[in-house]
Parts: sequence; C-alpha cells; structure tokens
Amino acid sequence: MSKIDFFFNPKSVAIIGATSNPKKFGNTVTANILSNNNLKSEIFLISNRSQIIRGLRTYKSISDVKIDVELAILLVPASYVPKIIEECIQKRVKGIIINSAGFGEINEEGKKIEQKIVKRCKEAGIRVIGPNCVGIQNVPNGLNASFIQTPPQGNISMITQSGSFGVACLYEMRQNHLGCAKFTNLGNQIDISFNNILSFYKNDTQTKVICIYSETIANGKSFYNKIREVTPIKPVIVLKGGRTKMGMSAANSHTGSMASNYKIMKAAIHQGGALVCENMYDYITALKAYSFLPLPDGEKIGVLTNSGGSAVLFSDYMEKFGFQLADFSPSLKINLQKHLISLVKLVNPLDMIAGANEEQYYQVTKAMLEDDNIDIVVACTVIPPFLDMKSDEHLNGIIKAWNETQRKKPLIPLFLFGHAFEALKVLSEKEKLPLFMIPREAAHATKYLIERMRFLNSLESSS
Amino acid sequence: MSKIDFFFNPKSVAIIGATSNPKKFGNTVTANILSNNNLKSEIFLISNRSQIIRGLRTYKSISDVKIDVELAILLVPASYVPKIIEECIQKRVKGIIINSAGFGEINEEGKKIEQKIVKRCKEAGIRVIGPNCVGIQNVPNGLNASFIQTPPQGNISMITQSGSFGVACLYEMRQNHLGCAKFTNLGNQIDISFNNILSFYKNDTQTKVICIYSETIANGKSFYNKIREVTPIKPVIVLKGGRTKMGMSAANSHTGSMASNYKIMKAAIHQGGALVCENMYDYITALKAYSFLPLPDGEKIGVLTNSGGSAVLFSDYMEKFGFQLADFSPSLKINLQKHLISLVKLVNPLDMIAGANEEQYYQVTKAMLEDDNIDIVVACTVIPPFLDMKSDEHLNGIIKAWNETQRKKPLIPLFLFGHAFEALKVLSEKEKLPLFMIPREAAHATKYLIERMRFLNSLESSS
Repeated sequence: MSKIDFFFNPKSVAIIGATSNPKKFGNTVTANILSNNNLKSEIFLISNRSQIIRGLRTYKSISDVKIDVELAILLVPASYVPKIIEECIQKRVKGIIINSAGFGEINEEGKKIEQKIVKRCKEAGIRVIGPNCVGIQNVPNGLNASFIQTPPQGNISMITQSGSFGVACLYEMRQNHLGCAKFTNLGNQIDISFNNILSFYKNDTQTKVICIYSETIANGKSFYNKIREVTPIKPVIVLKGGRTKMGMSAANSHTGSMASNYKIMKAAIHQGGALVCENMYDYITALKAYSFLPLPDGEKIGVLTNSGGSAVLFSDYMEKFGFQLADFSPSLKINLQKHLISLVKLVNPLDMIAGANEEQYYQVTKAMLEDDNIDIVVACTVIPPFLDMKSDEHLNGIIKAWNETQRKKPLIPLFLFGHAFEALKVLSEKEKLPLFMIPREAAHATKYLIERMRFLNSLESSS
Repeated sequence: MSKIDFFFNPKSVAIIGATSNPKKFGNTVTANILSNNNLKSEIFLISNRSQIIRGLRTYKSISDVKIDVELAILLVPASYVPKIIEECIQKRVKGIIINSAGFGEINEEGKKIEQKIVKRCKEAGIRVIGPNCVGIQNVPNGLNASFIQTPPQGNISMITQSGSFGVACLYEMRQNHLGCAKFTNLGNQIDISFNNILSFYKNDTQTKVICIYSETIANGKSFYNKIREVTPIKPVIVLKGGRTKMGMSAANSHTGSMASNYKIMKAAIHQGGALVCENMYDYITALKAYSFLPLPDGEKIGVLTNSGGSAVLFSDYMEKFGFQLADFSPSLKINLQKHLISLVKLVNPLDMIAGANEEQYYQVTKAMLEDDNIDIVVACTVIPPFLDMKSDEHLNGIIKAWNETQRKKPLIPLFLFGHAFEALKVLSEKEKLPLFMIPREAAHATKYLIERMRFLNSLESSS
C-alpha cells in the first residue's frame, strides 16, 4: 500500500469546520463526502457549535472523537488553522487537507504561518495537502473530499496546482465523456507535492492516464526523475502555466510561489517521456487519445473522408509532423472500389465525396482497419446538410467497423465541428469513443499516439 | 451596382435539373430557393421530364422561358453540362452556377471540358461560379442558391473553395451565434475567383467581416493587391489549406488545382493587412472578435478573474505577444477596493477569488471599462461548482457593465470551458456577445483586435 493511501482511502475522516450553512465551504464538503453510497470511511463532523448536521451528531473538537482519525479536512478561517493543527497532532491523524485560503498566496505573514505548520506536522509525521485548495477525490471509491462536484468515473487521474483550472478541466472532460479516477488539487503545496501524488497514481490500478497542471515546480530535478519513473508505465500529460514573467507574476499572486524556467522544464519533462501541451485544447486532445484509444503498432496512416477540405488540412499537419500517409496496396484498392462511386480517386486520403453514407463509411473504415499496411485510421466527416442524411450515420458506420475489428487499431474520428450535433455526442458517449472536432485536433491525437508508441519502443530497444 | 450583383440579387433564376426526387441535389436547391419569403427573384424550374414541382410548372429547357433569366443554376450530371451551357448562352443569362461535380477535380478530360466551358462563356460575356460547388447564399435578401441549409443572418461573409469546409464553418458559426451575410463556395473556380467575390463583399453594406478558406490561389500577385484594397475597409481573415506537399496533393484530388507556396503567400497576405489563421479554432476566434467587438483605442489591458489558473495562462500569452497589462492607477485601486474582500491583492490580473459574485463582476468590470488607463477588459471566470452560484451570474454582471458603458471598449469574456453551461450560451446569444473558452482563445481575440487597430492606425499615419 502506498505511503499516502490514507488520503485517498481513509478509514476515518474528520471534517473540521462542518456546518449546515449553505453559504460555507464546510457545508459543501460535508454534503459531498456524505453523498456517496460506496464510501467505506467513517465520517466525523467537527463544529464549534454543537449541532446535528445531516443527521450526524457533531463534535466540538477532533479530540472528542473516541476512535482513530486518519484524515482531517480543515475548513476553518486561516487564523484558526494553527490551533486546529495542534489538535490534529494530538489526535495523531495521518493526513491533513487544508482547504482554507489566506496563507502564502496573500502575504509574507501567511508564508510564515505555512512554515510553522510544515515544521509541526513534519515533527509529528503528518502529511499535509494545501492550503488554498479545493481538495481531493477518489471517484471509484466514492470519496469526494472537496468542495467541487463529483465527476463521472473513468481512468484519468489529475494533479492540479490551481483549483479553478481543475474545475474547468473536469467540465471539459465531462463534455467529452472522459471520466476521472483520482483528482488532487495541491494548492500552495507546503508539503505534499506533485512527486508524492505521481508515485501514488503510478501504482493506482484505477488510473490509466495521468494529467498535470502546474505553475511552480519546487524541485525540478526530482520532478524530472519522478516523471521518468512513471512514464514507462502510464502516459503523463503536462500543461504548464507561468511560462513567462507576466504569467509568473500572475501565478505568484495566486498560489504563492515563483514559477521556474519554462524552456528548461519543458525540455526535461519531454526528455522524461511525458507530453507537454501548450494549451488547453491540446491537453484535452491528449486525454481523449490516451484514455479512449489503443496505441498503434506502426506509423502508417489511412485517411477516409467525405470532405475534401478537412483531408487537406489534416494532410498539412501530417507533413508538418513528418508522418507518412500509407500507400494503398493493389488488393486494398480492389476492395475499396467495390464500395465507392466511380468519381472517387483511389488515393490516400480517400475522398468519397459528400454523398458517402453509413454503409460506405462502414465498409471503407473496416477495409482500412483490416489492412496490414495501415496502422492508424482517420475517418473525416462533415455532416452533409442535405439529402436527408442522418447526422449520426457516418459515425455509426465507423463504430461498427471498429467494434468488428475488436478496436485493435487506433481509430481517429474527425467530425468537423461536429459538436453542433447532439446525436453524435449521445452516440460517442454510449459507445465510449472520442470525437475530434478540427483537423488540428485529429492530427495532434495521431501525433500523441505515435509519440507514445515511439517512446515505449525506445525503452524496449535500450533495455 | 457591382458587376456581379446578378449572382447575389438576381431578378430571375432558372434551376436546371429541378426534380421532386428528395435524393437529388436538384430537389434540395429547389426547396432551398423556394423556402424564403423575402426573396424578390422570379424562379423558373427546368426539368427534362414535364412535371409540377412544389406547385410550379416546369420547363423542358431554359429556352422555353419567355422572359429574361439572369442566373442559371446547373444541377445536371457533368456530361450534360456543355449542352446546357449552350442553351444558357442562347438565352443570354448573365451568370451560371455549376454545382455538378465530375470535372477538373477527377481527371484531365474533366479539365478539358472546363476549358471549353470557360471559352464559350467568356465569348458570350457570361460569368461562371464552380463547377463542383454547393452554391451561394445572400442571407439578408433571402437567396439560398445552394444545396445547404440557410444559416442565421449576420454580418460575416464567407468565400470558401471547399464546400465541406464552408458547411462545417457555418455549423460552428451557429454554435457561436455568429451570423452570415453572404456565402460563396467557389469549387473549381474556372472563372469567378476570390478576387471577384472580394470586390463584391467590399462594397456590400451588409458585410462587416470577410472570411476566406482557400487551397489554391491562381494569381498570387493579383490576390495580394485585392486584399490590400479590401483590408482598409473591412477585416479579412484567411485560412489556407494545402500548406504542404502532402496537403497540396490532397487538395489536388479534391478541387483540381495545385496549391501555391504557403510561406510566400502568408507573408504577402499579412503584409496586405489580412489575418492569416493556422487552424479552425483561431479562425472562429477571429470571427467572434471582429463580428461582435469594437476595436480598442489603445493597448492597455485590464484583467479580472475568479480563477488564478486562467489569469496565469492568459498572462503568459500577453507576454508572448509583447502586450502590456495596465498598471492600476491609485484612483482605480480605491474604487476596486470598495467591492472586494481583503484577501484580494490589487494587482493586474485582479484575482477576486472563487467567491466573487455577480455584483462584484459587475462593479469591477464597470470600473475597468470606465478607467482611462484601460483600453481592453478581459473578464475571466470558472463557474464555481459550489455555494449554489448561478452559472450565468458572472456573465450577467459583465454584460450589465458593458451595456452601461455603451459597449465602447472591447470586452473579452473568458469562461473556461464554459460551453458546458447552457445558460451561458442562451445569455450570450440573447445579448449578442462572444464567449471565449480557453486562455489561448481570449488571448488571440485580444491580439486580433490590437493588430487590426494597429493596421488601421498605420494607414492613417502614412496617408
């Protein structure tokens, strides 16, 4: 069991600052933690006013709880925190999450209080997440120890320095029906850092993909070594804020520490096998690629389309990235021709023209997925606003082909601005596959899969 | 009146290849053109089978129509087109749109037929759009001479070489409640080119913003001169497909001509005052900025936020672009302080922390919009998933402030992945303002506005 398992699978939790006032975070966290049937932890509510909250009796102090408490969540104003910390030390808790703001991120005095807290907890062998954070979640196990909503369950685990970034990212993940395994908002990270959580996620069987948003990395060398340790096992995606002086200065007034040199960090993280994304679109694209798709066995790309423009823009990216479109073999051409009208040229990208329907998408996608000379299939579509076509028929054809080939090869469905169509969203959610909305996105998804394959191959060949 | 006004405001139109078969484009175009109450043109349906379609009698040939026909739309198979062209010449139409595919984009024989058509029409003084195109639209005047749906009305006019790109772009414009004035799909552009349509849009009072998707530019020098002529009057946004050999080769099999050298073209177009976008996200971002927002009077940027991470990422872009965040004046600080909690540092970006509500967004946005030292206001928000906040309250506050200052300054609302919230979409559509979804997008909108202002200023100072 990991050294910090008590944060994510605590036997018992005390919420210090629990309240029935809906305007307070202490209420939101209480409601969240009590909302899940699956949670195995015993919960204790601590409130300085004696009261019943949601049917649970409350304790004036954590000291009044008779059994051991593993995890304490602090939701009291900053000025009360040092006193509460002493009570937690007395109680011998294993971990503390300090949600409260008003520490190092606002002034020097706050930084000093942080230092005192760290010193006292270190002496007592207690680990601390925060302060100034929204909390953590272990979705499959039903732990929502945060004041944000519980996301849908899935295989992605996130570490974010900024709470608001984490919240926004979870919104977008939900839009793309990407699910969450673990969520950690580090806040001012006075003790628990990216490295600790990375170690935990590395060994977490519910985590397939790890994503990070960081503004400040305290110890670059050790972070790099940790990345190198994790990436052979799981893909790690990093988005870095505070890349510039102006961004650093904004970061400084926000989570209370200075950002490090971006270029050096970026090179080191890339060297360590992680993917560094420059913006949120690429970040979500990478999540979609790694969460939903298998890695390819090779680099030969087959493209089909009903939309010339999208294939042109996609092909531009392939050349920019130095990738090759597969040459169609004579036998594949014969196979394809059976399903296509005579206006269609049998070249890659295969432009089947706007009239291509579900059956053609099915047959052509399947022919490419079954072809030994093609490793990745990119199926481009613009939903034709004419001839009474169903908006999800192309996707239906593509999915049928993918399922019948056991989803062995990565399939990249590019639906140009397809989020205008509810039916596409419903179908892709039901069938658990990603949709990519512009050529740039489909091209980057292809790139991320190939790069990950290359990275894993390089490890094999050097071992 | 423009030389090609008969395409967009024809007194009379013949649809050649009209049919009541819903599986044929001839039916879709007929339905589209007859669907709008506002259309002032007289419509004639030409069908080789004598029949009644949608209550209109049909003619066997355009020659049978007794009055003058200005515009002919050809929806017959490619092999019939040359014969129909001769009939149109006899009838002395002014313009022809050839929707039919199967010409230069498929083979050499098709190219030869194109050349014959051009020669014959040139001799007769007839202008041709297409072939291989979805058609054109004049939305405010009710003309849908295409087989695609009619988009909402607005101030953007599009020229696209690829029909599918145009369709996808219209989908996304609708998602962002961006409206369309004119739409032109050039297809193989054997006669009417970007330049002709640019001239027309330049003088069109219903067009505020012009956007272009091109794969091939026949005459670079003349295109550049045309761009230079239009950009002092209206912003022109260009997305280029076929930037690479691989993309060119895809373009070649799609609209039948070779793409030109991207770098040279990009530099020339930029020099001419147009905006060249590298991907569809940036392209839509530019449309949102120019269609909805006024230009700034200066370059001083004020940022407010409830979300540290978004302000950090936004600030990174500002430094990358070489822009300055405004220094808050002492009087502005005094004004701001009245509305904020004490944890908030009075620096730019102003991080009001997650609890900031509608009233604070209203007061702070208004204070910045009214401040002489701020030219552009960027309001960042992550919708807090706690404390029972309404998802549209921040936007309500921002809009109120913008409206009360007569929308004189550009306001950039950044709602981190806000498209998860229906209420935001409804409100922004009703109030006619754009939403930007990630820091990159808000930063690029800021950049596009400043660059346009600089360009117009440079014209003034050199004249």
